[in-house]
Amino acid sequence: MHYASDNSGPAHPKVMEALLAANAGYALPYGNDPATERARAHIREVFEAPDAAVEFVATGSAANALILATLCKPWEAIFCSEVAHVEADECGAPEFFTGGAKLALVPAPDARMSPAALRDRIDGTAQGNVHNVQRGPVSLTSVTERGTVYDLDHLRALAGTAREFGLPVHLDGARLANALATLGCSPAEMTWKAGIDAVSFGGTKNGLLGVEAAIFFDPAHAWEFELRRKRGGHLFSKTRYLAAQMDAYLANGLWLRMGHDANAAAARLAQGLYESGTATLLHEPQANMVFASFPRAAHHRLRQAGAQFYSMGSLDGPDEEPVGARLVCDWSASTADTERFLDILEG
Amino acid sequence: MHYASDNSGPAHPKVMEALLAANAGYALPYGNDPATERARAHIREVFEAPDAAVEFVATGSAANALILATLCKPWEAIFCSEVAHVEADECGAPEFFTGGAKLALVPAPDARMSPAALRDRIDGTAQGNVHNVQRGPVSLTSVTERGTVYDLDHLRALAGTAREFGLPVHLDGARLANALATLGCSPAEMTWKAGIDAVSFGGTKNGLLGVEAAIFFDPAHAWEFELRRKRGGHLFSKTRYLAAQMDAYLANGLWLRMGHDANAAAARLAQGLYESGTATLLHEPQANMVFASFPRAAHHRLRQAGAQFYSMGSLDGPDEEPVGARLVCDWSASTADTERFLDILEG
Amino acid sequence: MHYASDNSGPAHPKVMEALLAANAGYALPYGNDPATERARAHIREVFEAPDAAVEFVATGSAANALILATLCKPWEAIFCSEVAHVEADECGAPEFFTGGAKLALVPAPDARMSPAALRDRIDGTAQGNVHNVQRGPVSLTSVTERGTVYDLDHLRALAGTAREFGLPVHLDGARLANALATLGCSPAEMTWKAGIDAVSFGGTKNGLLGVEAAIFFDPAHAWEFELRRKRGGHLFSKTRYLAAQMDAYLANGLWLRMGHDANAAAARLAQGLYESGTATLLHEPQANMVFASFPRAAHHRLRQAGAQFYSMGSLDGPDEEPVGARLVCDWSASTADTERFLDILEG
Amino acid sequence: MHYASDNSGPAHPKVMEALLAANAGYALPYGNDPATERARAHIREVFEAPDAAVEFVATGSAANALILATLCKPWEAIFCSEVAHVEADECGAPEFFTGGAKLALVPAPDARMSPAALRDRIDGTAQGNVHNVQRGPVSLTSVTERGTVYDLDHLRALAGTAREFGLPVHLDGARLANALATLGCSPAEMTWKAGIDAVSFGGTKNGLLGVEAAIFFDPAHAWEFELRRKRGGHLFSKTRYLAAQMDAYLANGLWLRMGHDANAAAARLAQGLYESGTATLLHEPQANMVFASFPRAAHHRLRQAGAQFYSMGSLDGPDEEPVGARLVCDWSASTADTERFLDILEG
Repeated sequence: MHYASDNSGPAHPKVMEALLAANAGYALPYGNDPATERARAHIREVFEAPDAAVEFVATGSAANALILATLCKPWEAIFCSEVAHVEADECGAPEFFTGGAKLALVPAPDARMSPAALRDRIDGTAQGNVHNVQRGPVSLTSVTERGTVYDLDHLRALAGTAREFGLPVHLDGARLANALATLGCSPAEMTWKAGIDAVSFGGTKNGLLGVEAAIFFDPAHAWEFELRRKRGGHLFSKTRYLAAQMDAYLANGLWLRMGHDANAAAARLAQGLYESGTATLLHEPQANMVFASFPRAAHHRLRQAGAQFYSMGSLDGPDEEPVGARLVCDWSASTADTERFLDILEG
Repeated sequence: MHYASDNSGPAHPKVMEALLAANAGYALPYGNDPATERARAHIREVFEAPDAAVEFVATGSAANALILATLCKPWEAIFCSEVAHVEADECGAPEFFTGGAKLALVPAPDARMSPAALRDRIDGTAQGNVHNVQRGPVSLTSVTERGTVYDLDHLRALAGTAREFGLPVHLDGARLANALATLGCSPAEMTWKAGIDAVSFGGTKNGLLGVEAAIFFDPAHAWEFELRRKRGGHLFSKTRYLAAQMDAYLANGLWLRMGHDANAAAARLAQGLYESGTATLLHEPQANMVFASFPRAAHHRLRQAGAQFYSMGSLDGPDEEPVGARLVCDWSASTADTERFLDILEG
Repeated sequence: MHYASDNSGPAHPKVMEALLAANAGYALPYGNDPATERARAHIREVFEAPDAAVEFVATGSAANALILATLCKPWEAIFCSEVAHVEADECGAPEFFTGGAKLALVPAPDARMSPAALRDRIDGTAQGNVHNVQRGPVSLTSVTERGTVYDLDHLRALAGTAREFGLPVHLDGARLANALATLGCSPAEMTWKAGIDAVSFGGTKNGLLGVEAAIFFDPAHAWEFELRRKRGGHLFSKTRYLAAQMDAYLANGLWLRMGHDANAAAARLAQGLYESGTATLLHEPQANMVFASFPRAAHHRLRQAGAQFYSMGSLDGPDEEPVGARLVCDWSASTADTERFLDILEG
Repeated sequence: MHYASDNSGPAHPKVMEALLAANAGYALPYGNDPATERARAHIREVFEAPDAAVEFVATGSAANALILATLCKPWEAIFCSEVAHVEADECGAPEFFTGGAKLALVPAPDARMSPAALRDRIDGTAQGNVHNVQRGPVSLTSVTERGTVYDLDHLRALAGTAREFGLPVHLDGARLANALATLGCSPAEMTWKAGIDAVSFGGTKNGLLGVEAAIFFDPAHAWEFELRRKRGGHLFSKTRYLAAQMDAYLANGLWLRMGHDANAAAARLAQGLYESGTATLLHEPQANMVFASFPRAAHHRLRQAGAQFYSMGSLDGPDEEPVGARLVCDWSASTADTERFLDILEG
């Protein structure tokens, strides 16, 4: 019953195999090894983007902050949802890497901004006036921080709004595989064809040990990104181990299968919660995260039975009072666990 | 004949085994897993420093820059050798992480600063005068960037000089295992007993996939370091994989054996170069790096035969003209390779 | 009819006289002149704060940003109103000077935060969790950006809330003289006696050419501030000219008289607007700024007649539609101008 | 006998007059006043640069740091002399404003870099290698920090070297008037015609209260500079007072006359020192600064008589031992003072 985060499960055995295989012999460091070039080519192929710049880092915060720093001047605003990971969960990494840009928050009830709300926020940032920060990139997350997924029309509308103002668009795709599993579209359709300029393409939350790719569909950004990465201490010497993970991830659609399996596990969990009569779903669970509210007593019961998840409120208080919970499934989540969780929930 | 760098060889099989073992089941992320606590305890034990703060990152530049940022105000100078890795090989990472500190370079003919030269540089930085940057930490490297090793008296004298001025001391120990193999002393003797306040304790150049520990002997620095690490995008979610590597590294002295083997390989190489009559050693080879000068023709011959190493000058020019070479041995360097290299060198 | 800003009027003649007098002969630079020491002492006396650190800069943004950088770590949040000058009108100066701190915005309908809203925002920033920015200073403005003034109880309650959480409090006092004229209290009562730790004490908007004092009631902050000021390019060499202005400002209560006169002019204007039947006051005008709404046609009429003020909306549109206006009076605003303005307004 | 610095003398009476005149009535703030536009036009005319971007700040460090930040990426090196003001006297302002660029120091015995030394330093900074900082702007100072002046051929050769590498050139012209008085050439000849891209055009050290102009001969830099200036807290609201000073400075060649007078005073002083038999000139005094060495006893005698100057060594020690002195003349230095100084020197 491991629902604390999709970063608490094991890496996929095929990824471990690839890592072992990559360990044979010598390899030039700093991305000059054939494995890195192969993994880059693999990503370009999967995204149907033969010219894209592709660089690897080990954490999602690094990918996000380095991409945003490359797209954003220090005196600009980054438009993002009020619950965006870059705003709420990175201890100010974007501010640090950009040299002090400002995050301009857009209301987003279930973590999705509406095009109108985005437009309002951009409009409200006067341009060409030296007194306030200038308009900079738009940063979207999908799967969002509340487990929802932007559909393609929504993504296109947001990117189109940015485009109208001449602003670049970043996609935080820490859970891109899960979003694609939901949408059933191609990586290209969800990214550059929808108007996205740069993607943090996550692997860590979906069965890798720790690899994310930064993808710029305009390769002119590559050199600045590489300098910022090195200067940020994020250039690995032994890049073959990052590349090997990514290569195994993409091979034969493993990443999409893992994304699909995680989503399916979350769907079973959500369905059970919905039918339980005990719990209320807080956001529509569209991928591998379920937000639900259930009585504090159930929180206690579940924790005592060893279930791991994030309680979004104090566990001190009346037993019958509902308290929110975040439940995240990774690729390895088991049906048996789900059933056990639901059994205990119902008491 | 892989002498390009000690980061181009394979990770040790025991490290890979540990990684596989660490992959079983679920583990809390962000350092809250038992493996991370175990690896921390292991380092504290090995360094005889039960109170030390120990944190893991994946690159040496991250360890160096985050430690220096924790020890240094933006308006201070970091005193280091003119060829220090933090000055020459990190694309300005210390400047970035500190918020714009200045690296005050100390002359260091074979990459070792003398205590007198350090004192001169500190003395030359007026203190209490708002017009210039103030005195900040001293940063030493050993094994140095030229393959030499500070002996304990030398280290103590440098740290003592810093102490006189009230300045903290950082040790870039990317090759700490190799230095210890040379000195034959304990980790404690080479660090806190010699007056070092914080260490970048390297594993990546000595048989790990990518792990470095930041060690502060005064644990009061821990929280600031952790915030800077997170904000720098250097906090891994799946910390178990870093911890497992470090744990295997320290187990049964594997790290010291690997350091010793790399040094021994370099010593064989250096001896052969010295006896060859063809090459001149440029710095005293005290650990696992050899700097030697030999005719350009030999550079060409060796490269054609597949030898990998760093030529420190142009390969265009008269054949007989000597050109410098940097030759680095890692734990896996083979005697057969050395013999072959020397054979080809002699033509 | 110059209501564009209180920085568009002339400096007071006594200030110009003092400037001329200060120009005689030689004076040591960088604050080592007797005039600077005199002006510092003058401020300490006026604020009944014999130990306070007092430093001069030339702009309000410099005072604010340098004080906040001194009180705030790069990984902290600055709690301020959503319309605070530091948030909306300084092009990200606080982010730049702090090294990337985050401004955490508190709802403030008429630019005044309630203690409850401040507490909510602080409470909502989890402390001791490395994933989000940590709690940092609270920054208040009074006179606020909407012309309102915090009464002493309100100030004390806000500062008390900050104190409960152990957070320092900054007061942006660009219009401190006007606030004091409203409150009728002493500078000490409005600042350190109310729990304020540091003040940007403005002169530029109230009859000086360009001088602001940074005041820290705990002088331990002085040296860091001085280094940050120098490094920020804000240390004047010819400090006597800043000091002379400040000295003349404080002499015989000139500053308070100017503040009073500006407020009185705004009160006359507000009264006229209120009685006009044409305009609606948007915020309670408690100092020298009036926010009012009146038909677009009146905006046009007034501008054609040469009136200068800030229209808070487009001037294209139906004549009868009300559009907001910001009207700011400085110490030199004339009654005749006010009457003329009101006549033209009424058409 | 005021030789401490050229920033310790009075502002020129015509400058004070202009300041008084500028104080009449109202003026739009933030550079939108006619006086600012007039002063800009004046500079463009004097520099024969009708398209140049011209912006005002109050300190030399602000002009230097903001220009360098506009010309330099955070991951680049600024090539400057080892005694440059930007390196030695600004507490790291360039590092702060650029976001952590590195100052790459060029040997410069009398504060003048040779083109060969500059070329060596640039050549020694590998380009296109992510491991080290990249090549950035060249920053020159003339009058240099040791009182020497680059002749036009020298300037052209340095700028030409930069140009070969595609690097922009900044001139720290805090004493530009003095340099022009020495060279007898036009401002255009010493700047854009010699290959300079941007100038810190000083007024503060030559009879103004505190004004410097940042001049970019390519106006494409203007907007970024303006944003950086605002964000740096260096945009004055009451710009008319800066503009009035600059306008009076340029009117009828006042600035050049003041520069000439300061140089003449220094030449008299240098001649007297040279002829005294007591002192040794340390650098060729080509403008308004004299560096000389004379017995410690004379330092004591002069100080006791009230002379102000900078002693470049300890005043504790044997009386007869020579100690260096920096003697700076401003526009108001008197012949009588010089004679008195020389008399006391000779004892």
